Amino acid sequence: MIATRRQAVDTAGQGDVHDLTEMVGRIVAESGCGSGLATVSVIGSTAALTTIECEPGAVADFNGLLDTLAPRDVPYAHHERWGDDNGSSHVRAALVGPSLSLPFEDGRLILGTWQQIILIECDTRPRQRPLVVQVMGE
Amino acid sequence: MIATRRQAVDTAGQGDVHDLTEMVGRIVAESGCGSGLATVSVIGSTAALTTIECEPGAVADFNGLLDTLAPRDVPYAHHERWGDDNGSSHVRAALVGPSLSLPFEDGRLILGTWQQIILIECDTRPRQRPLVVQVMGE
Amino acid sequence: MIATRRQAVDTAGQGDVHDLTEMVGRIVAESGCGSGLATVSVIGSTAALTTIECEPGAVADFNGLLDTLAPRDVPYAHHERWGDDNGSSHVRAALVGPSLSLPFEDGRLILGTWQQIILIECDTRPRQRPLVVQVMGE
Repeated sequence: MIATRRQAVDTAGQGDVHDLTEMVGRIVAESGCGSGLATVSVIGSTAALTTIECEPGAVADFNGLLDTLAPRDVPYAHHERWGDDNGSSHVRAALVGPSLSLPFEDGRLILGTWQQIILIECDTRPRQRPLVVQVMGE
Repeated sequence: MIATRRQAVDTAGQGDVHDLTEMVGRIVAESGCGSGLATVSVIGSTAALTTIECEPGAVADFNGLLDTLAPRDVPYAHHERWGDDNGSSHVRAALVGPSLSLPFEDGRLILGTWQQIILIECDTRPRQRPLVVQVMGE
Repeated sequence: MIATRRQAVDTAGQGDVHDLTEMVGRIVAESGCGSGLATVSVIGSTAALTTIECEPGAVADFNGLLDTLAPRDVPYAHHERWGDDNGSSHVRAALVGPSLSLPFEDGRLILGTWQQIILIECDTRPRQRPLVVQVMGE
């Protein structure tokens, strides 16, 4: 059985993190599947998905790493092409990745207690982020 | 329904990027599945897959980041083992990752307009890269 | 058909790497599925999964990169919250990612000869790491 759902999340721009765990868990539960694979993906090339302990400290540390790896206000070749200012966003998103597939069992995602699925906005401006949650199972 | 297909891509060595979106989309369409999950993986430990806006600027920026993280011409412990020169390739590939799973619906991959699936060659020499595209759906 | 199995791996703390390839391959073989998708995920937010040529040199190089990106003994905002000392662990794990989905065919994982599935412990202390291996196929 396959259920594919769309959801949108409004973000506040670069570094804004949203905990998607409850939303994904609800879609898994509503699918009626007992066990299977839940895939979350973000549509667009300037946001990313991963898991983290979603408390402000660890989130700030992760953003600090991304700021060091791809500072916002330095020259990027991407800027010369379109007049954009979000070269840092593209390389951050490509590095972290756009999707995540996680098993579930008994209708529940298998995650640690302090492990949350997050969307990390990498773009330099607020965005409405379309997400896809796909549940495949039996 | 599951369809597993092999494809090879000839690369030009470190930093060479290939847009796989059309190829993956064609395999999804040919599978006859309406909705499901498409997984792309690269066989080998010195290439990686992700999504990016596949225009030369963003690609150059991403390669610039990888060059900074894992410069090619510095010592690597891997070189001492085999006499290889591709330590930078192994750590880049392990960091970015070897596979990508993305949902599709109505026989079409769900991606942003400026979001492409790419193979990034990390090895120091041209390679023929075997890829696997697996479509699982109904 | 879906088979979801749990396995635990005892790790020695930050930088300890375990080759999971044989274990995942055995679970794929035991599932009786010919072709499909194998997903491995780690429960917890301070360990990660990827593929690499699992020889001591390349592993040391990868750990060297992670040590540079997220040194262990510098201040992290996460430390101020819980009195933890593993801020470096959280950002490493979030960057590399908690799960991996790979196709199999003829009951065998499709991987390169020198490409292994690894668990990389990012936490600062030894952990018993619960893993999930899910086989979905036919």
